[in-house]
Amino acid sequence: MVAEKNSNKKADNQASITPLINITKSDMEKVNELIIAMAGSDVEMIPEVSNHLISSGGKRLRPMLTLASARLFGYEGSGHIKLATAVEFMHTATLLHDDVVDDSDMRRGTSTARMIWGNEASVLVGDFLLGQAFKMMVEVNSMDALSVLANAAAIIAEGEVMQLAAAKHLTTTEDEYLKVINAKTAALFSAAAEVGPIIAGYGEKERQALRHYGTSLGLAFQLVDDALDYGGNSKNLGKNTGDDFREGKITMPVILSYIRGDETEKAFWKQSLEDGKNDDEALAHAQKLMKQHHSLEDTIKAARHHGNEALKALDGLAPSKEKAALCEVIEFCISRVN
Amino acid sequence: MVAEKNSNKKADNQASITPLINITKSDMEKVNELIIAMAGSDVEMIPEVSNHLISSGGKRLRPMLTLASARLFGYEGSGHIKLATAVEFMHTATLLHDDVVDDSDMRRGTSTARMIWGNEASVLVGDFLLGQAFKMMVEVNSMDALSVLANAAAIIAEGEVMQLAAAKHLTTTEDEYLKVINAKTAALFSAAAEVGPIIAGYGEKERQALRHYGTSLGLAFQLVDDALDYGGNSKNLGKNTGDDFREGKITMPVILSYIRGDETEKAFWKQSLEDGKNDDEALAHAQKLMKQHHSLEDTIKAARHHGNEALKALDGLAPSKEKAALCEVIEFCISRVN
Repeated sequence: MVAEKNSNKKADNQASITPLINITKSDMEKVNELIIAMAGSDVEMIPEVSNHLISSGGKRLRPMLTLASARLFGYEGSGHIKLATAVEFMHTATLLHDDVVDDSDMRRGTSTARMIWGNEASVLVGDFLLGQAFKMMVEVNSMDALSVLANAAAIIAEGEVMQLAAAKHLTTTEDEYLKVINAKTAALFSAAAEVGPIIAGYGEKERQALRHYGTSLGLAFQLVDDALDYGGNSKNLGKNTGDDFREGKITMPVILSYIRGDETEKAFWKQSLEDGKNDDEALAHAQKLMKQHHSLEDTIKAARHHGNEALKALDGLAPSKEKAALCEVIEFCISRVN
Repeated sequence: MVAEKNSNKKADNQASITPLINITKSDMEKVNELIIAMAGSDVEMIPEVSNHLISSGGKRLRPMLTLASARLFGYEGSGHIKLATAVEFMHTATLLHDDVVDDSDMRRGTSTARMIWGNEASVLVGDFLLGQAFKMMVEVNSMDALSVLANAAAIIAEGEVMQLAAAKHLTTTEDEYLKVINAKTAALFSAAAEVGPIIAGYGEKERQALRHYGTSLGLAFQLVDDALDYGGNSKNLGKNTGDDFREGKITMPVILSYIRGDETEKAFWKQSLEDGKNDDEALAHAQKLMKQHHSLEDTIKAARHHGNEALKALDGLAPSKEKAALCEVIEFCISRVN
């Protein structure tokens, strides 16, 4: 935990996830216990597969959002632990299914579950975790929280199919792409944040604030992720640089580079992303074109815009350490990119 | 509809699904409308994939159970339509994911969705339908119904993983196998039936009756399915005879044949199911061994035992046309096997 703190805090004047980690620390311990308990099963393969992913070092940003958001509104029950765990399970299930859909070999620097246990296990353990997530949500006994999370589950899946249908189509527009990431990433951030005021008994105004905060943070987060895929290196990224490129994924940096490119460049993008000519040389050329057209810079600019929206969404709320932590984590998500 | 009735009713003195179809007819029309509406999406691939499966001629036994069970207890609201649709979506999602897990080419006599749209689409559209199912359940606003169905979702997935882990292990015992089908098939039948008394406002006694009815019917249904896979032909079965055999699935007829076989026979089963020597000649030999050891007969006997349990579960309920239809459909499920 100390090591994680330090690695997240490069300099004192830099935005950090540390305040969010600190204010959710004791709650997160309970979440981690519940994760282990609910991923348990007599069927050995289930804890094996889920622990592989759960213990592989994600930051658990989404459940921390739920915990901080509940505390922000003075929630004192224990329902937020179950909801935060459900949110993490929904996320884990999505990752397991994504890896199958994308044929991914690596995630967060280690082999994907499907490489070790096969596609079958990834599909079915994903389904199991989703089922467990719904069981926990039901136990919290809040119809509104359930409704928000069930909605998110349907929207996430719709977004994934949307991305599948858009895959390899370079004519995807910026707006279409924002719709995709709104569904596949921002919907869960949004739901994770909105359930806080819900279980604390607050109404539409507060729900809307946290919903907008979550959506905007999710968009910023995903755009930065897209940029990192062309800009980071495998070690600090925890996935292979160029994964999106090799999978033919159309992301924001690609869309911008394609629009801004001449005919020769457009032909290159088609060849590499639609027809699969995507070796290391092609990746290097793609990165060169992105530099030339400021595609990564502008992707980060777009992320920064959504980050500002997230900040504004919390404007009306009284100062508190939870609010401060939720504000600081926006900048942390964006500055991951260096 | 008329054609379906006739094909289901071979002779007047034979058990039929017709009474169940008749008493749920007007409700099922609403379910079918809701299925189409909720499988709709701007993302074209979603209705394409789901309609492929939804329109491919399943009997919709599970949603009919929910409808009949609600009516049996005098339910007069509209929640049973949503719950029945949710049950059908849960089932459809399971089929989509199963086909990926089993590498199936054919289902109900037509190509599987994964053969047409790929594994990715099957995984993600399955997830989408599951999300839609939970949205509908939430709308019904019954925590107890939600709890029963969410529990079933987790149990079904656990059962699928259990089957995956048991796959190709001929040492699977009868008891272990009953556990698998209890989870992967009977849990949804059970939940589909139990939500009837729940939304009608009845208590544990009635819930237990319908829960036991559903579980026992589900076990009988699955055992008959297992027997059909070695006994029917591709046309009347709607799937290829020998599918389970080629996929190396350990089912009740195999377990019985293996236990009852001598060393040479045990070696044959290992070779065909564990090592994949499963051509047509091997299938014919498997069928010959099953005949010799009465494995199919005894599988049907076991199905009949669970069918009787299902019948007994409804003993305490007053006579009604719903009860009569639910009783008759037990025998219909068993006598599918001719």
